[in-house]
Amino acid sequence: VFDPISARVAESVGYEIGMIGGSVIASATLAAADLLLLTLSEFAAQIHRISCASNLCLVADADHGYGNALNVMRTVQELEHAGVAALTIEDSSLPMSFGQAAGEERMVSIEEAVGKLRAAVAARTDPSLVIVGRTSALRSEGTEGAIERAKAYASCGVDAIFFVGLEQPDQLEAIYRVIRLPIVAFQYMERERLANHGVRILLQGHHALPGAVKALRETYQHLSAGGSAGDVKVNLASAKEMNDVIGAETYKAWQGEFLR
Amino acid sequence: VFDPISARVAESVGYEIGMIGGSVIASATLAAADLLLLTLSEFAAQIHRISCASNLCLVADADHGYGNALNVMRTVQELEHAGVAALTIEDSSLPMSFGQAAGEERMVSIEEAVGKLRAAVAARTDPSLVIVGRTSALRSEGTEGAIERAKAYASCGVDAIFFVGLEQPDQLEAIYRVIRLPIVAFQYMERERLANHGVRILLQGHHALPGAVKALRETYQHLSAGGSAGDVKVNLASAKEMNDVIGAETYKAWQGEFLR
Amino acid sequence: VFDPISARVAESVGYEIGMIGGSVIASATLAAADLLLLTLSEFAAQIHRISCASNLCLVADADHGYGNALNVMRTVQELEHAGVAALTIEDSSLPMSFGQAAGEERMVSIEEAVGKLRAAVAARTDPSLVIVGRTSALRSEGTEGAIERAKAYASCGVDAIFFVGLEQPDQLEAIYRVIRLPIVAFQYMERERLANHGVRILLQGHHALPGAVKALRETYQHLSAGGSAGDVKVNLASAKEMNDVIGAETYKAWQGEFLR
Amino acid sequence: VFDPISARVAESVGYEIGMIGGSVIASATLAAADLLLLTLSEFAAQIHRISCASNLCLVADADHGYGNALNVMRTVQELEHAGVAALTIEDSSLPMSFGQAAGEERMVSIEEAVGKLRAAVAARTDPSLVIVGRTSALRSEGTEGAIERAKAYASCGVDAIFFVGLEQPDQLEAIYRVIRLPIVAFQYMERERLANHGVRILLQGHHALPGAVKALRETYQHLSAGGSAGDVKVNLASAKEMNDVIGAETYKAWQGEFLR
Repeated sequence: VFDPISARVAESVGYEIGMIGGSVIASATLAAADLLLLTLSEFAAQIHRISCASNLCLVADADHGYGNALNVMRTVQELEHAGVAALTIEDSSLPMSFGQAAGEERMVSIEEAVGKLRAAVAARTDPSLVIVGRTSALRSEGTEGAIERAKAYASCGVDAIFFVGLEQPDQLEAIYRVIRLPIVAFQYMERERLANHGVRILLQGHHALPGAVKALRETYQHLSAGGSAGDVKVNLASAKEMNDVIGAETYKAWQGEFLR
Repeated sequence: VFDPISARVAESVGYEIGMIGGSVIASATLAAADLLLLTLSEFAAQIHRISCASNLCLVADADHGYGNALNVMRTVQELEHAGVAALTIEDSSLPMSFGQAAGEERMVSIEEAVGKLRAAVAARTDPSLVIVGRTSALRSEGTEGAIERAKAYASCGVDAIFFVGLEQPDQLEAIYRVIRLPIVAFQYMERERLANHGVRILLQGHHALPGAVKALRETYQHLSAGGSAGDVKVNLASAKEMNDVIGAETYKAWQGEFLR
Repeated sequence: VFDPISARVAESVGYEIGMIGGSVIASATLAAADLLLLTLSEFAAQIHRISCASNLCLVADADHGYGNALNVMRTVQELEHAGVAALTIEDSSLPMSFGQAAGEERMVSIEEAVGKLRAAVAARTDPSLVIVGRTSALRSEGTEGAIERAKAYASCGVDAIFFVGLEQPDQLEAIYRVIRLPIVAFQYMERERLANHGVRILLQGHHALPGAVKALRETYQHLSAGGSAGDVKVNLASAKEMNDVIGAETYKAWQGEFLR
Repeated sequence: VFDPISARVAESVGYEIGMIGGSVIASATLAAADLLLLTLSEFAAQIHRISCASNLCLVADADHGYGNALNVMRTVQELEHAGVAALTIEDSSLPMSFGQAAGEERMVSIEEAVGKLRAAVAARTDPSLVIVGRTSALRSEGTEGAIERAKAYASCGVDAIFFVGLEQPDQLEAIYRVIRLPIVAFQYMERERLANHGVRILLQGHHALPGAVKALRETYQHLSAGGSAGDVKVNLASAKEMNDVIGAETYKAWQGEFLR
């Protein structure tokens, strides 16, 4: 989910958890690429809007915590206040460094990542806030490296570990043998296998925004070509559905109760 | 248009003007009904984001100017700064008064509206900012009443008049005989007739957001039902299209130029 | 208190409650007069900053709730989220109406005020949030009128009543005989008399900002006249005091703990 | 200057330029230490408020540009939009790295700094925006190193160079022999010598906020000890002065003109 409307729609079809990706929020809020151009303030403000509009449990991808361990502390405070149920802090070195090749990934040292995760845990004031350590180590340091990092992160008091690039069953099994924390992963395997090996949150990728973009293009193309409003109607949410999305009945009831 | 992404898409299909409706921004920003719950700050912030992301000429529906004539001045300052090319100030009495029946429309007096429009003109610092007086008088005061208001508003120095509810050709002709300012209207008649009678901006109604909502619902429904990501692909904007929308190539060029 | 620094200083001299006046926030945030030009978003953002920086119980003057009863609901939600311990909603008609004379005060009807206070109470999600009904009726409707309003407001479920213009002991006694809720008042009488008659929060007026302004003027005048930095030192908070205000030691400890 | 009020006061005593220090804004906005915890959004928002409230030419200390060269571009866009006349981008490595000792300063390479300054110049849309390259090299790389950096920065198209730690006359003379750009410096020497060697903006250090803090403490201490409001009056700006600061007369004139 990326804005209040998408959150309302996701909730209405039955989702209980809403994933808030940093890249998607950068797109939705700035129409910018996923390059850490969005500020923590902008990210938190968008999440606050989503949180006010829906009852979804929000899982925010807080990237690297917007700086060093002290910035991580502020990130946790701001996002906790904005209403997330969970947030991930990753061990990538961000934003891109001078001289870094396009597509090259860099990680911070395990010591630095541990400092950041300990800071995140210390900054939490609501004990029910879930802090997830996210590691990209599978890609660059292999299964052994990822497990070593995950063990170190678990010792910081985080509540779950997100393994980016977890695509192979044997990786999952090796991890599950030693990591007792809940696991977050993208969906590369069957659901049951994942569920049986400790995966508790499964990300499905970012499909909602591209879906909306395609619909926007078709609607605008039709109208800008002089097409009539009547002809696009079949491709639009109905007035009733829009009223549901914006809670029109609730406001009507409040008007009756407090304004008359 | 209602957010940076919709503005980018509208621009890419050839639009030169983007209409920013108060109701649509309330939906998109708060998932709230069109009841003046959105603050001027939230409205201006959303417009600033849209303005930074696109080259559209933005026409903002600034409702009643968020209060009295002094609030109108601040509205003009904030929206001018946020990057609008034009804004409308209407003569409705808003927000809904205590005791006002649902659906009942109330207008401020012509004197009060004139004070607000004179304030709006005085608050403008960029002479190219277009200020549009918007009147709902056709519905409640008839063609004569609307013309009287429009003449008074024109004398304030506004650049155009927006007639809400302009549905009948004879209304348009009566107005066109006496009002020499450009006219803004919703599309209830053929384009040529409107163009020949002074209508310079034609609103097509709010179809983009409902189009996006329908697409979101279909995408979420598919995924929440366990549907595969592959199966929805056909209904999504392509990776290439998403990259265009977020300007990925531009960022890539900047990375090559300044980060290496 | 009007910003994070003033809150830190007030807390350090022993205050437990910080009053956040609408007029003072308008001055501090916009350098604007007290004319409802500040938006709810700006007010809430300033309070959030103050709340993050201090442990004061914050009492916010939320004016008339930024519109009608529905706007009151949003005001309560936003200020509760921003971290206030208490907020006041008043029965003045704001912002100034068209045609209203300078200095003239207008009130909304008792029915409308009741609708707003009932809405405020309904919008509260944290039961410990204190909602104060504030009435200006003493000035325009006399003691009897003010008592009638206060009784009606008490029946809405508010937690306290703020009587503006409560200057006479006999007014206080008449009120105290019938209103069992805690009272908020400006200091026009001796503290004991007030305390013995139900006054639980005593406002001392807005002296902090004028104090800061006088100091700013003297510092700037000295420096702009070519005066040396050394000569103003005696009029400045010491480096140690500034470090205390910004919590420098805490950050130093965090750096030692998480960045090394 | 650090908020709208301080800017109004500085302007009223005759200042034409207002310096906006990153550290001071962090104090004023967050009551936080100068550790890059303030986001670009918060910094820009505070500057926008200051800019709206005063006619000072604002010089903003934009630290290291809030990230890499792409973040610098966004910094320039946001601060230009917020209303600065000039901004500085420095060659320090910020925020503090993992393992960096307290008090230790780290700089980015000359190549990286050049990339950032070229990006800053490219991101400017208003040609009158002054971009200042700020270097800390005098301290760590000596006069020769600083000159080498300054020459490289000048070749990027920046409009001035800010030498941090410029304390010795022979340093200034060596710099002035080769750098033809205007120089920004802190006041460590006599004004004439500085002016004769190309220094065009002279910073006087951050005295305004500590002056305000001392006044706040004295006011709060007096009041919290039960002191009367009358007794502090002599230490407060007068009502007339406060009205000047918030422009009360202007608002009164607008009320007469547009609200009646």
